[in-house]
Amino acid sequence: VPDEITLLKGTPFIGARTEVEGARVVLFGCPFDSTTSFRPGARFGPAAIRQVSDVLETYCPILQRDLEDIAYADAGDLLLPPGDSRIALDAVHQFTAQIVSAGQIPAGLGGEHLLSLPLIQAVHKANPDLCVLHFDAHMDMRTEYLGVRLSHASVMRHVSKFVDSSRILHVAQRSGTRAEFDAAANAGNLREATVSPVELRDWVGKRPVYVTVDLDVLDPSVFPGTGTPEPGGVYFNILQNWLVGLADCHWVGWDVMELAPTYDASQVSSIVAAKIVRTMLLSSTNG
Amino acid sequence: VPDEITLLKGTPFIGARTEVEGARVVLFGCPFDSTTSFRPGARFGPAAIRQVSDVLETYCPILQRDLEDIAYADAGDLLLPPGDSRIALDAVHQFTAQIVSAGQIPAGLGGEHLLSLPLIQAVHKANPDLCVLHFDAHMDMRTEYLGVRLSHASVMRHVSKFVDSSRILHVAQRSGTRAEFDAAANAGNLREATVSPVELRDWVGKRPVYVTVDLDVLDPSVFPGTGTPEPGGVYFNILQNWLVGLADCHWVGWDVMELAPTYDASQVSSIVAAKIVRTMLLSSTNG
Amino acid sequence: VPDEITLLKGTPFIGARTEVEGARVVLFGCPFDSTTSFRPGARFGPAAIRQVSDVLETYCPILQRDLEDIAYADAGDLLLPPGDSRIALDAVHQFTAQIVSAGQIPAGLGGEHLLSLPLIQAVHKANPDLCVLHFDAHMDMRTEYLGVRLSHASVMRHVSKFVDSSRILHVAQRSGTRAEFDAAANAGNLREATVSPVELRDWVGKRPVYVTVDLDVLDPSVFPGTGTPEPGGVYFNILQNWLVGLADCHWVGWDVMELAPTYDASQVSSIVAAKIVRTMLLSSTNG
Amino acid sequence: VPDEITLLKGTPFIGARTEVEGARVVLFGCPFDSTTSFRPGARFGPAAIRQVSDVLETYCPILQRDLEDIAYADAGDLLLPPGDSRIALDAVHQFTAQIVSAGQIPAGLGGEHLLSLPLIQAVHKANPDLCVLHFDAHMDMRTEYLGVRLSHASVMRHVSKFVDSSRILHVAQRSGTRAEFDAAANAGNLREATVSPVELRDWVGKRPVYVTVDLDVLDPSVFPGTGTPEPGGVYFNILQNWLVGLADCHWVGWDVMELAPTYDASQVSSIVAAKIVRTMLLSSTNG
Amino acid sequence: VPDEITLLKGTPFIGARTEVEGARVVLFGCPFDSTTSFRPGARFGPAAIRQVSDVLETYCPILQRDLEDIAYADAGDLLLPPGDSRIALDAVHQFTAQIVSAGQIPAGLGGEHLLSLPLIQAVHKANPDLCVLHFDAHMDMRTEYLGVRLSHASVMRHVSKFVDSSRILHVAQRSGTRAEFDAAANAGNLREATVSPVELRDWVGKRPVYVTVDLDVLDPSVFPGTGTPEPGGVYFNILQNWLVGLADCHWVGWDVMELAPTYDASQVSSIVAAKIVRTMLLSSTNG
Amino acid sequence: VPDEITLLKGTPFIGARTEVEGARVVLFGCPFDSTTSFRPGARFGPAAIRQVSDVLETYCPILQRDLEDIAYADAGDLLLPPGDSRIALDAVHQFTAQIVSAGQIPAGLGGEHLLSLPLIQAVHKANPDLCVLHFDAHMDMRTEYLGVRLSHASVMRHVSKFVDSSRILHVAQRSGTRAEFDAAANAGNLREATVSPVELRDWVGKRPVYVTVDLDVLDPSVFPGTGTPEPGGVYFNILQNWLVGLADCHWVGWDVMELAPTYDASQVSSIVAAKIVRTMLLSSTNG
Repeated sequence: VPDEITLLKGTPFIGARTEVEGARVVLFGCPFDSTTSFRPGARFGPAAIRQVSDVLETYCPILQRDLEDIAYADAGDLLLPPGDSRIALDAVHQFTAQIVSAGQIPAGLGGEHLLSLPLIQAVHKANPDLCVLHFDAHMDMRTEYLGVRLSHASVMRHVSKFVDSSRILHVAQRSGTRAEFDAAANAGNLREATVSPVELRDWVGKRPVYVTVDLDVLDPSVFPGTGTPEPGGVYFNILQNWLVGLADCHWVGWDVMELAPTYDASQVSSIVAAKIVRTMLLSSTNG
Repeated sequence: VPDEITLLKGTPFIGARTEVEGARVVLFGCPFDSTTSFRPGARFGPAAIRQVSDVLETYCPILQRDLEDIAYADAGDLLLPPGDSRIALDAVHQFTAQIVSAGQIPAGLGGEHLLSLPLIQAVHKANPDLCVLHFDAHMDMRTEYLGVRLSHASVMRHVSKFVDSSRILHVAQRSGTRAEFDAAANAGNLREATVSPVELRDWVGKRPVYVTVDLDVLDPSVFPGTGTPEPGGVYFNILQNWLVGLADCHWVGWDVMELAPTYDASQVSSIVAAKIVRTMLLSSTNG
Repeated sequence: VPDEITLLKGTPFIGARTEVEGARVVLFGCPFDSTTSFRPGARFGPAAIRQVSDVLETYCPILQRDLEDIAYADAGDLLLPPGDSRIALDAVHQFTAQIVSAGQIPAGLGGEHLLSLPLIQAVHKANPDLCVLHFDAHMDMRTEYLGVRLSHASVMRHVSKFVDSSRILHVAQRSGTRAEFDAAANAGNLREATVSPVELRDWVGKRPVYVTVDLDVLDPSVFPGTGTPEPGGVYFNILQNWLVGLADCHWVGWDVMELAPTYDASQVSSIVAAKIVRTMLLSSTNG
Repeated sequence: VPDEITLLKGTPFIGARTEVEGARVVLFGCPFDSTTSFRPGARFGPAAIRQVSDVLETYCPILQRDLEDIAYADAGDLLLPPGDSRIALDAVHQFTAQIVSAGQIPAGLGGEHLLSLPLIQAVHKANPDLCVLHFDAHMDMRTEYLGVRLSHASVMRHVSKFVDSSRILHVAQRSGTRAEFDAAANAGNLREATVSPVELRDWVGKRPVYVTVDLDVLDPSVFPGTGTPEPGGVYFNILQNWLVGLADCHWVGWDVMELAPTYDASQVSSIVAAKIVRTMLLSSTNG
Repeated sequence: VPDEITLLKGTPFIGARTEVEGARVVLFGCPFDSTTSFRPGARFGPAAIRQVSDVLETYCPILQRDLEDIAYADAGDLLLPPGDSRIALDAVHQFTAQIVSAGQIPAGLGGEHLLSLPLIQAVHKANPDLCVLHFDAHMDMRTEYLGVRLSHASVMRHVSKFVDSSRILHVAQRSGTRAEFDAAANAGNLREATVSPVELRDWVGKRPVYVTVDLDVLDPSVFPGTGTPEPGGVYFNILQNWLVGLADCHWVGWDVMELAPTYDASQVSSIVAAKIVRTMLLSSTNG
Repeated sequence: VPDEITLLKGTPFIGARTEVEGARVVLFGCPFDSTTSFRPGARFGPAAIRQVSDVLETYCPILQRDLEDIAYADAGDLLLPPGDSRIALDAVHQFTAQIVSAGQIPAGLGGEHLLSLPLIQAVHKANPDLCVLHFDAHMDMRTEYLGVRLSHASVMRHVSKFVDSSRILHVAQRSGTRAEFDAAANAGNLREATVSPVELRDWVGKRPVYVTVDLDVLDPSVFPGTGTPEPGGVYFNILQNWLVGLADCHWVGWDVMELAPTYDASQVSSIVAAKIVRTMLLSSTNG
């Protein structure tokens, strides 16, 4: 456990206050990528999202809601040391727990997907009946990766140890081992990319929901700036529609992970991530 | 008003003559970007379009027409000084007026979208019953941007001062303020990205039409090389089909704006822009 | 004819053995691009495909097959001299003939599309009733390009001299001269991008088939890393579905050409190419 | 004159406080580039300097001083509208005047070189005996550029209207018109790149000095990320030594201009700029 | 021999007329790179040089001469087909011979170094006592490269068949085989990078001189945009001083080869090449 | 300790055999970067060095030696898991020990500088009188970095626990804390960038020497492709001359670390690294 949590303040996400108190949603960055298996650089994701967020308007014509209507804060970035996952996981867990205990919705900006683990852990502790929506290109259900148990390739495996598999829904995965796909098929908790927003909303129902978005669920043409791009993904409007469709659900936490801006010099991946964050800010506070 | 107009001659667009006289369509570059709000660089758009145009064939298998069948000229680039919008607007207006008075179709290559203003002004003067088709990701109906009235974010606001709102059709806009969207909804002159080519053609009817294409109407996966990319746009074939569908209309002017090639090292954005120019050359001269 | 064939060994494609003997499919690189008309660099394609292939899993959830189930080798790269097409064509032909005579399936990784010519020649010699599926943005039926007969723009013209036009099917071409399109229309051997996988499978039937994929058939948003990008192409899943649909056909040879990784710093084009190779490995060995 | 000055707070420069009060030096960003003649993008300079500054140590082994020993603040970025130089100049002037009147040293981060004009004006008003050191590749003594008087190519011409030419020293200029070079030669106020730090220090003597660094004085190999790169410049250590050599002078203002980070994907230009800022922070507070 | 020479007109080099007649120096582009051994792309060199040339002033403060004082033309680019060296060599030879027979100085912009061969051949025919200055990182004295005799790696070997070795001076080569270096050492016609401008001028004396600059003689930090970068080269000012030092010699032809702009997104390599062209224009016309 | 060491075979370094047995020097890649403090990506260093090595000749005109004259192997890359430094350090140590016990010279290709620790440990065990030459921009003498003890910022601190400070020479460091510089000044084991090759050779004398090159000792203009670039470094020829000057020393191990090729799209950094490897191969086997 870290002695203290250090937050680095930066340019806030468009329209966000920097004071956490009184906010309904608290954004915070998780700049860490040490277990990334292919291309590191997700540590630069949170800063990139904020830097480009100003190109967006605060108004969403689909939801017909405006960021100006809601209370959300950008707490800055957690200071996470490269090369030691345990320190990073502890810091994220501790900060998330603070937000949850204040009755706020934590919203993590990644950073590698492994950091969803402590976020979900802390949210789950306060919401034992939590269900989890997992948007991703990859199953992330490996037991280990090259001998390393705490890996971004095994994050949902770890989550499934405390959230029952029946309360986790994997959406649009298109890469994994045969064992991973067979297990999901058996459990019946995998939905293809053709799933409708209504089906997702109905699956969630009235349960408290945590939504974790590994942005590589998007097609690499839309989102090349990520560590492990996988061809054949969903287009922006599909993902946006899923998230808009959840606007009446009871959100208790969410994250947007795996932006690695170095690999997309056009900055489009960063802008896509920022627009997903805007959509989730508006959707998670609609209820 | 500038004392004289200077044209810089360069490699012409594929198949174009460089002599303006006798041409039905006159292409000219408007290398200016001083009011760009996010990422400048549209000044390099016209040169980039010409440079890559040779990768295309002159034949369009959809329209089954060939550039070799039509008379079009590439007049080169207007010399526009960075940092002074009024000089730039005056030069574009003056040159457009020359083309119009010669009975030719002016076709501007941008350059920022603000420069559509003097183009449309000059065309409107000769065609008081002009209607305007506006393809764009953004409404561009702001009254000002950070205190600057002549901005690429307000170009259609300025146009709407001399072309009645009922004769302007906004197509596929997905970004703007609540006020901009509400105004368009009230006026009924906004069409979603699902609009069909036939609807557009019917809206135009037999009226003289000016078609302004802000290329950021395209999805950033297709067209990252622009100043203010906005996720969730239309794909290439959609835009191409709209333009092909207008082949029987009475075109009196058009432009292709907001290519900023610096942000797309793959050159794909430039090639996309060039193919849109080819399509518009063929479509605007079909009638 | 070259005195000897030199193979440069490198990191093999994911899961491939390096010993050719005993393999059912033999991958080999053809790093050559001297006749590329617009942007050279396809010579770096084979190395790029291998370098990124490890980001993929060996399992394909669509075909529900795993690379671990099949015997395939990566023979390395042919040493081909820049600037002399005849030496390059001879080397590719000679090595392909060796593979064919060993009863193996040759699978070329390009490199420019011209190198499909010696591949198809060698395969055709052993399979006189060969049919050829040609996925491409371009017709490639020119008789010459700027006076050069052996050009990547004329490769299918050369193929049509020994494979009858009725046994060649062009799929999804969207660029060419009027003469090229008219000839294909007359011959009835051009299918639009809307063709279904079943139609392709039925066209092939029980005949031995060679599948040549010029990757620029894909839309440039998906695949910018190529020499002559052409807007308006097909998306990844379309191409993948076509190839998956051929899984019951009798494959006797195939190639994946025209990756030029220099033009896509995001590496996505290389990963797309690698996933197409994985799909074709699994599809071509399913029967 | 702007009604109010807006400051955008962001990640501060390494080690800087964000409260201006009590600081000896006040850094502030001037994100504006509308008159840039060749490649725009200097608007992104201030953010890039801050973003990478953390790669540096706070200690300078040459000066043997540490940033921790001095009081300096980062006030954030002035909100400057693209496309209207007068508004931008007014805002910079007004904010600089505030700092000067508080007895602090203003330090502008550019942004295009034109913005040095209001900085020097405000500093000069409080220091009528001001001398100016001008490090630059270009003379910047044009009377206008394409008809625009307020241009980054004419900034020193404007300065010379209120600071006597004898109190301006141009250092290491290597590009200009014959007239510009002849005028400087006649005035005797041009020093070649071979000038020693001691000569510069002696020229300044005990006078209050303003130091303006147009970073394109550096060779493009060291600093490609700028709007108008000019081959044949000075290397990093030369510039650093000049600035270190001024450590005993009486600094009353300074700026670091013309970083355009878009053109250097390696980020090296940004790091170079940040290290120059560190050197100037330490040097300007040594006396 | 080509039936006709085709010249593609483009944006001329800064200040150049486009009419060849009456010019003392005739610039022309040689966009060809088919024998490049490592990274192709020199075909884009001539266009890149012209495109950026406008960032330079026409005045050179070292030579104290201005481009406005001399008569030079930019004839455009020769149309050279990729993949067939003989056609390319013939076209360059034929056009150079035309220029030479008109008493003008031919100046080739590359394009790969192999194209210096026909340039020097044509100039030599008119000047049998020609001497050749060869600035390059590589010896270029191979007899063949992978079986190809006409290669950019053997260009000086071919030149040495008609210009006696004693009249060729290799300057600053730092890469080659032992045999190449031993041969040059024996012949005494290799000078290290420390050679002074005066030594070079004296070696030339009053003889007609052809100066061929393979730009990779420069250090890759200054000039990364080339096909075969070799660390440890000379800096810009060294090369510029050599060329300035030849201002009183009797120039009869020159070239600037091997810019491959694709590999330098900062455009600095292109600007460096353009400034070398400016220097050679002024130096070659001083006598 | 890992149960087994896995080596991934790839394209070998130019001219290297792949069989380790019988070689005097054994190259091997250490693709790991989990503790990198600023920009990760050194994991891609070894592959990049090999990929470009073919652009070099095997002959070095300075040493007048050829790689063909020496016996060296490229063992491939160690399989090192991201996110767990201990596993990585163990694997490198174990493999190095094997090489050392076979009487061969281990030569590590990085990868982050932390991996020099197990290399030096294993070499030191067999050579208790070992001295270490440390070329680097940074002191690397921190006790920890953000709470992580095993960090690339503390590698030399760890080395100094088993190699006495008097037997470590730091060369050309220009970044560190005041404490780091003061300690080195007191110990007298820091040499500035002006140190001559002869001084270095004399310091080594007849002792067995390990040479560790953190490539960021080079100036970022020469070598931008690294995780923590620091302006003001040495140029290529300086570093090369130091290494050439050690050709008569008794080398027992060496490494070349911290190439992160992602940050240099021009590939020049990779070629620089490859040429340094060539120089060290020749220098370390000369005695």
